[in-house]
Amino acid sequence: MRVLILGGDGYLGWPTALHFSARGDDVTIVDNFAKRQWEFEEGIEPLLPIVPLHRRARLWKERTGHDITVQVCDLLNHRLLYKIMSDVEPHAIVHYAEQPSAPYSMQSRNSAVYTQQNNIIGTLNVLFAMESHCPDAHLVKLGTMGEYGTPNIDIEEGWLTLTHNGRTDTVMFPKRPGSIYHLSKVHDSGNIEFACRTWKMRATDLNQGIVYGLESDQALFDSELRTSFHYDDVFGTVLNRFLVQAAIGEPLTVYGKGGQTRGFLNIRDTIQCVALAVDNPATAGEFRVFNQFTEQFSINSLAEKVRAAATRAGVSVKINHLANPRLEAEDHYYNAKHTKLIDLGLKSHPLDDATLDLMFAAVMKAKNRVDPSVIMPRIKWHSGGDRAAAGRGAG
Amino acid sequence: MRVLILGGDGYLGWPTALHFSARGDDVTIVDNFAKRQWEFEEGIEPLLPIVPLHRRARLWKERTGHDITVQVCDLLNHRLLYKIMSDVEPHAIVHYAEQPSAPYSMQSRNSAVYTQQNNIIGTLNVLFAMESHCPDAHLVKLGTMGEYGTPNIDIEEGWLTLTHNGRTDTVMFPKRPGSIYHLSKVHDSGNIEFACRTWKMRATDLNQGIVYGLESDQALFDSELRTSFHYDDVFGTVLNRFLVQAAIGEPLTVYGKGGQTRGFLNIRDTIQCVALAVDNPATAGEFRVFNQFTEQFSINSLAEKVRAAATRAGVSVKINHLANPRLEAEDHYYNAKHTKLIDLGLKSHPLDDATLDLMFAAVMKAKNRVDPSVIMPRIKWHSGGDRAAAGRGAG
Repeated sequence: MRVLILGGDGYLGWPTALHFSARGDDVTIVDNFAKRQWEFEEGIEPLLPIVPLHRRARLWKERTGHDITVQVCDLLNHRLLYKIMSDVEPHAIVHYAEQPSAPYSMQSRNSAVYTQQNNIIGTLNVLFAMESHCPDAHLVKLGTMGEYGTPNIDIEEGWLTLTHNGRTDTVMFPKRPGSIYHLSKVHDSGNIEFACRTWKMRATDLNQGIVYGLESDQALFDSELRTSFHYDDVFGTVLNRFLVQAAIGEPLTVYGKGGQTRGFLNIRDTIQCVALAVDNPATAGEFRVFNQFTEQFSINSLAEKVRAAATRAGVSVKINHLANPRLEAEDHYYNAKHTKLIDLGLKSHPLDDATLDLMFAAVMKAKNRVDPSVIMPRIKWHSGGDRAAAGRGAG
Repeated sequence: MRVLILGGDGYLGWPTALHFSARGDDVTIVDNFAKRQWEFEEGIEPLLPIVPLHRRARLWKERTGHDITVQVCDLLNHRLLYKIMSDVEPHAIVHYAEQPSAPYSMQSRNSAVYTQQNNIIGTLNVLFAMESHCPDAHLVKLGTMGEYGTPNIDIEEGWLTLTHNGRTDTVMFPKRPGSIYHLSKVHDSGNIEFACRTWKMRATDLNQGIVYGLESDQALFDSELRTSFHYDDVFGTVLNRFLVQAAIGEPLTVYGKGGQTRGFLNIRDTIQCVALAVDNPATAGEFRVFNQFTEQFSINSLAEKVRAAATRAGVSVKINHLANPRLEAEDHYYNAKHTKLIDLGLKSHPLDDATLDLMFAAVMKAKNRVDPSVIMPRIKWHSGGDRAAAGRGAG
């Protein structure tokens, strides 16, 4: 199978590319290295250094014999994107190539506009390129559970059958996202659903929970083939950040009351879910939505789990509650369905003690690389515009 | 009151500006004349010639003594927009400044991307400019009933209270729009709701039906102060187009079966509704939605009404059904609520025989200006991308 991985240089894109390549698929990566630019802007770097993508692809070839093709392309460059679609003729397109950080999107007008333009227009270009060159290909698009917000009703998988004034319809599940970034994903979903309905394209929207963990194969974390692992306030997901805080002896920073409940999954399950979606494509005209997470946790309970893991390793950890920089409910109902991927065969990796201990041990080995000054949140939701953009120095 | 009219050169923007100016408000128009550019691209012009905006504003001053300030600004130019917001300090901002045509958005990748970028990013810039310079101003944003699509349930005004699995919530009404243009308005609504929720801004989203008619004051149609009136396949709304077809003795072109039902309103009621929204602002933090139309008609019934009006004027008219260039249900349930503006005092002008006869007479007087070659639909929904862009010559 020919698989195109958009955003294949990233935290999830690179291990996804390795997974498909390892099993014999013909993998092409597209990336524009925008994330590397954002890292420079924010003054951050991944926990461990990352080898340039082209060299990583060569190392992979040397070690496994499998080719991974690297194409440098910004999705806003539609001419090049059309050429790649035409040359590769992919069966499946896995689309991670978006600005993925809520805080990044909320720091200024510029970053908000950049995020929506990059994500929405980039995805529109993917849809038009597919329609022109591979209309039967299956688009597997990474969305986020954050698109739904925290409604007071059960969250279904993308669609909701409801009765109103005695009449029934199945509608797109109503969403109320919590940042400019999350909104960009909602807008993408609307555009993709329209393309499926109008042009009979096939797409799976993976509304993913918060990812944690290292590689699909833990041993990779010690190799030059590793993927990036962020712990900073902008790109670090919460569990990864807590593990780093614990490793360097800093208090875990819970935003607000910590009753915020979200769906989570291990990065190994991200890879598995994407592969399940690719191997079981949507039908022509179908806009399919999977809620891609394995467990729900409150932020408080995550903090306790990390504290317990650290304690088992002999490290003492405090938990601090900060004023919440975001605007979000801190005590709310949350029950999100996530059975469709299980029905396709997902065998999930729960966040058990053994998993936490392995992750904590890996982070401890790298703790001398941590920059403690990039962890505290700087970007606040309450004021829009450029007033929110406090620099590191002003922070 | 200081009122800023974004898109004040347009079909609805200009008469809105006159309305507020006539009653003594301090009116500033912002426009970038993009619509004039689109007219050149499409090879069309309004039924009657339109005087340049600056001269129209001077004529208005000569005739009434009222000043209308004209600011030439593209909403994508955020620096200039910030300056205008800072200089004007508006109490209300009426935002018409978007690419308003579904067919225009569907003709190519380029027009699709242009439409979403122009509309979404332009509106984001308005939100950030307001947050920086006039956070207490009231944003009155023109949306469209087309955002909802044609669900099998009653369409409420923006929000829906529903019970699911025994739990209740009030959510944004689920939408399933029918074009890239309509999607852009859905995305705007999501961004504006977020701004209200997060920054305590105040906004009214006017989900407007299909507008017909000439001016708020019919006599204006014969003056240099007139607004533009389009009858072509790209910018002409359906009733206006039917009136022109009848006037030149061409068959009325119904797309498909003609069972498509939509909300409609007279342009006089557009002005009245916008004024009602401005005079009764949303509260801080409120994202308020009004469904802005006065009557529901099927396309078939509209065609019959025009045929009857023409017959009364001694003109014989045929009705043709064309293969539908759009992808839309042609026989569907449709019941959209529209009580909130009535509750505020809207006195609507129904589409009665007298109204139709006046409009038909006005169009008949201008019938020698009609270009019959720009009426038939060229832009088809079924194929995306540039294959859909048949030129006039290839038509």
